[in-house]
Amino acid sequence: MLKVPDHQVGGHEARDGKLGPLIDDSGRFYKPLQSDGRGSKELAFYTSFSSDARIPDHIRRFFPVFYGTQLLEASDGSGLHPHLILQDLVSSRHNPSIIDIKIGSRTWHAESSEDYIQKCLKKDRETTSLALGFRISGLQIYGSKEAEFWKPNRERVRNFSATDVRLVLRKFVSFNSTGDSNLDPDCSFASTVYGGSAGILAQLLELKAWFEDQTIFHFCSCSVLLMYEKESVLKGGNSGAEVKLIDFAHVVDGRGVIDHNLLGGLCSLIKFISEILTNPDESTTKACLLDSEENHICSDNCTEK
Amino acid sequence: MLKVPDHQVGGHEARDGKLGPLIDDSGRFYKPLQSDGRGSKELAFYTSFSSDARIPDHIRRFFPVFYGTQLLEASDGSGLHPHLILQDLVSSRHNPSIIDIKIGSRTWHAESSEDYIQKCLKKDRETTSLALGFRISGLQIYGSKEAEFWKPNRERVRNFSATDVRLVLRKFVSFNSTGDSNLDPDCSFASTVYGGSAGILAQLLELKAWFEDQTIFHFCSCSVLLMYEKESVLKGGNSGAEVKLIDFAHVVDGRGVIDHNLLGGLCSLIKFISEILTNPDESTTKACLLDSEENHICSDNCTEK
Repeated sequence: MLKVPDHQVGGHEARDGKLGPLIDDSGRFYKPLQSDGRGSKELAFYTSFSSDARIPDHIRRFFPVFYGTQLLEASDGSGLHPHLILQDLVSSRHNPSIIDIKIGSRTWHAESSEDYIQKCLKKDRETTSLALGFRISGLQIYGSKEAEFWKPNRERVRNFSATDVRLVLRKFVSFNSTGDSNLDPDCSFASTVYGGSAGILAQLLELKAWFEDQTIFHFCSCSVLLMYEKESVLKGGNSGAEVKLIDFAHVVDGRGVIDHNLLGGLCSLIKFISEILTNPDESTTKACLLDSEENHICSDNCTEK
Repeated sequence: MLKVPDHQVGGHEARDGKLGPLIDDSGRFYKPLQSDGRGSKELAFYTSFSSDARIPDHIRRFFPVFYGTQLLEASDGSGLHPHLILQDLVSSRHNPSIIDIKIGSRTWHAESSEDYIQKCLKKDRETTSLALGFRISGLQIYGSKEAEFWKPNRERVRNFSATDVRLVLRKFVSFNSTGDSNLDPDCSFASTVYGGSAGILAQLLELKAWFEDQTIFHFCSCSVLLMYEKESVLKGGNSGAEVKLIDFAHVVDGRGVIDHNLLGGLCSLIKFISEILTNPDESTTKACLLDSEENHICSDNCTEK
């Protein structure tokens, strides 16, 4: 009864005979253990994390539930392969909009091999990681029944500039602007999805408070998932706004030091999202001002603040 | 009337015919402009910072006052050389204890030359910068009239491990343990110097709040100075606990993004100092526990919590 996940936005995919994660219909996510040592590191993390009494419950909820491991027929047809059994984070969701954000300006750690460090450093410098302290590594934004999802391909996401990242974080919570539309995102869902006491910003701030204090783990190269359901918001229902942490193949011992690399990136993301909440129509205004300065015209729908 | 500063703990020193900063007796510090572009970058920073109305006064006080530039006879005898005229941060102090801490796990930025990046990266990996998000780059801790200052040399400071950093931050606020004493630091001044509403921790938290928000500058490779006066504390007077930011030769435009590299390192330093305040006698306890586990003995002055 296992199948390929519908809403995976990053990582290896179990398509075209490749090795990737599978889901069942009871809300479990089967992630094949990577064979180069990452798999065993991720397993070690989940094992240690699940039984660590120092993790408070309000923080534990940001992590997928870990159910153990299981030998399963691999999606690439290579026979039995060990899989982590995790909570399927989107099993109860209908058409979720999702962004996968790799946190930290540095995605390598001191114990990595020199080759791996150089590879990561290059990618951190080529993407927005170095400049912003995070990079988008995948996304899908639900448009409408007709338009369905905007899901730019890997190559395109990898080339996102700081400006693209700002735009995507605005499109994520907009009604008018999904896909490759050139409309300024209206950010009409910003206050519902990013804002509020149960919104994404509040959840990120809760995580931040923990990361300012915890010295148990360094979450190198892990991702934050931001999720919500546009259709539910449109119907006036619960947005389902949720933050989750995933990908723990590069977690190392914190050795009594806070994870300053993750914390810095998280604070940067928080600032981006706060700015959208403070200035939901900023980009329109800016574009208008720029336009009027350069071309001495200002269209009717430009309203200067 | 210019002379070599008495209490400089890091950077180039104007001794033995070398180019370095000078002070006068009116509280001004003359820092020679470095010729490789750093000098002009630091001048550009001070000029821009001094006139930037976005910097609140409670943050401005963490920076040396900038008075302009002046051509002066250089300390290396090479003739007239342009100097920045800055506030001498220790002119009113008597026997100050000082630590100079370079903040950030990364001391280079994207616009640096490839050679410079590689050089900095190597040093960040060899020192505690990568692991802790900061490294101590100089210090002097006042002992007593007899013992005067403990001022380990550059080579020794450069080789500080994470354990050394913890120890130095404890010695800094201890009565019993200065210099190379093997006594466990008693941290008897921790609550006076690090704690309290005007203490070093409160000042660092004020800076942190600003760095969570400001997107004007990225302070690459700058230092935090921690200072106080032990004699004054012993007499029951004001500790003179003060935090300052210095060294702005690598400040770059923030481009609307917070300085996540500095912020992460600052949060890490804050955690180190918070821990000393929470557990002023932790190291004693830990050493004792370790000792009793390994050698099955526990001396009389070990008190388990």
